[in-house]
Amino acid sequence: MVNYKIYIAYDGTKYNGFQRQSTHPEKTIQGKLENVLTLLFKEDIKLIGSGRTDAGVHARGQVCNFHVKTMLPEEEILQYLAKYLPQDIAVIQIREASPRFHARYNAVKKQYAYTIDNQLFPDPFLLRYAYHVPEKLDLAKMRQAATYLLGTHDFKSFTTLKSKKKTTVRTLFDILIYEEAGIIKLIYEADGFLQHMVRILTGSLIEVGLGTRQPEEISAVLQARARSAAGSMAPPHGLCMEKVFY
Amino acid sequence: MVNYKIYIAYDGTKYNGFQRQSTHPEKTIQGKLENVLTLLFKEDIKLIGSGRTDAGVHARGQVCNFHVKTMLPEEEILQYLAKYLPQDIAVIQIREASPRFHARYNAVKKQYAYTIDNQLFPDPFLLRYAYHVPEKLDLAKMRQAATYLLGTHDFKSFTTLKSKKKTTVRTLFDILIYEEAGIIKLIYEADGFLQHMVRILTGSLIEVGLGTRQPEEISAVLQARARSAAGSMAPPHGLCMEKVFY
Repeated sequence: MVNYKIYIAYDGTKYNGFQRQSTHPEKTIQGKLENVLTLLFKEDIKLIGSGRTDAGVHARGQVCNFHVKTMLPEEEILQYLAKYLPQDIAVIQIREASPRFHARYNAVKKQYAYTIDNQLFPDPFLLRYAYHVPEKLDLAKMRQAATYLLGTHDFKSFTTLKSKKKTTVRTLFDILIYEEAGIIKLIYEADGFLQHMVRILTGSLIEVGLGTRQPEEISAVLQARARSAAGSMAPPHGLCMEKVFY
Repeated sequence: MVNYKIYIAYDGTKYNGFQRQSTHPEKTIQGKLENVLTLLFKEDIKLIGSGRTDAGVHARGQVCNFHVKTMLPEEEILQYLAKYLPQDIAVIQIREASPRFHARYNAVKKQYAYTIDNQLFPDPFLLRYAYHVPEKLDLAKMRQAATYLLGTHDFKSFTTLKSKKKTTVRTLFDILIYEEAGIIKLIYEADGFLQHMVRILTGSLIEVGLGTRQPEEISAVLQARARSAAGSMAPPHGLCMEKVFY
């Protein structure tokens, strides 16, 4: 058995998300990749992703692994994938990993970027990749609000995950917020993210930036441990899975 | 009468080009802008562009002007345009120009950029803005070929313009060719460009980069003064009007 580690990038606009669905698997990133890999290796391929991304969310550094019986030269795999994968899914790198490597379990840190276009006229070239908020955002207030979120907390307020069994405690290492020529980036780093967590964090920080919420309120939102306490969920197209650390 | 100078950017993907067409004016950049400006100023607006762009070609720095009887505050114009223009057309700036300013006649230099994605897997985020050429291009040869094109020449071989009356002589000031992480940029500067000129120049330089043409042949192509002598026309989506100099 060979364990391949594969780094991919994708434009999620046309997909129902990363995770394969029983109906319309070809509308998911995982389904597309599994189908092409299965044809190449002539055996059923089960892809393990570092994490799911929602419908419409992008990735520059998604990491996956899969096991196969037969080994093929990396160049041959790349050529085949380049020929048969749709152009909105790109393979950055593929290489043999240790037999024990698991893309989800072994991830120690993940980085997501949320892009906001904060200009009166949105950049026409970023329409699919940035959330347009024309009202001026107060970045100093957003940064102040972000400090309450750093560290280990129960992020139950910031997820739509309903499971009562799974822990909603995560450690948020950093939220970097900066602006360049009207484009605001929010870079999140954590040991893991709950479902919709980055989008709800971003929606809440945007409300602080707009002045409809005070930075200090974020602390109470955390403590509430209720989705209703947090802000609205920012749309998926501004979000991108940037990097997974092992 | 007031003469307004307006800087615009647009994603040309969905349009039949810059120039207004009698049928489907709303499928052109000029038509869209004229329609919205006419509603705002309540008088017929005739927009003068610095030059046309083909269907599917983009712009970051198209410049236009238009005359109106009534002057409106710039902020009011911007707010109205932001509300009623489609998101793939952005206004960078609008300001009053001298009464004599003419966006086409007064242009002394224009800069166009052509983007080639020269990776096996194209960047999913550049699919609409870069022409994918997976075979490795020899940039040194392309730069050598470009030197033959610099200066004042009859560029009849590099246009599909059929008019026998108009001159096809232009002065090409510079062609800058560089690569960064698999993305190749060709930056063209000239006193003006003929119809399809940048795309045919690029198609010809790509053939040199692929080795199907020698750099020295470009000199003979110029001298032939026949479209058939030049290379194929690169697709529109890699092309962007970057800047107009006055």
